[in-house]
Amino acid sequence: MPIKYQAKIFVTLRPSVLDPAGVAVQSGLKQMEYNNVEQVRIGKYIELMITADSENSARQDLDKICDQMLANPVIENYRFDLTEVESVIGAV
Amino acid sequence: MPIKYQAKIFVTLRPSVLDPAGVAVQSGLKQMEYNNVEQVRIGKYIELMITADSENSARQDLDKICDQMLANPVIENYRFDLTEVESVIGAV
Repeated sequence: MPIKYQAKIFVTLRPSVLDPAGVAVQSGLKQMEYNNVEQVRIGKYIELMITADSENSARQDLDKICDQMLANPVIENYRFDLTEVESVIGAV
Repeated sequence: MPIKYQAKIFVTLRPSVLDPAGVAVQSGLKQMEYNNVEQVRIGKYIELMITADSENSARQDLDKICDQMLANPVIENYRFDLTEVESVIGAV
């Protein structure tokens, strides 16, 4: 019976990659007198629901989805948390 | 003595707000035959380091930083996790 999972996906720039958006936010914060903030890094946070036969197959799908669409493997890393939400009765 | 914290900030659209980027990703995934994915919501994930005298003052600064710069209070929610990284000796 298929199971529905909530996925929380974090896409971040690789540490070696410069983050212009992060640099811009940091200089903006300095102008607002927040001099106690550093190393600002900006990434994507994606939530979605995925239905699969097992946690393992949900993870495999998410790996492919992240590699093919949500993250740019050249400059970004991704990780995700998976939480079972409900067993789906009569789903396709 | 000032303490350095790592902040992990999650900025997400309020549930009532339409997410065109999420809709676009979902339709893209459908074209790639991923029909088991729904409710895609895209937000921002921000990491930064903040130095403060206490966890409470770090939280207060982060609330102001999120309200004033990182999140649009009209359409977005934010939450953050704070982790103490190190006590900073001789910091400003």
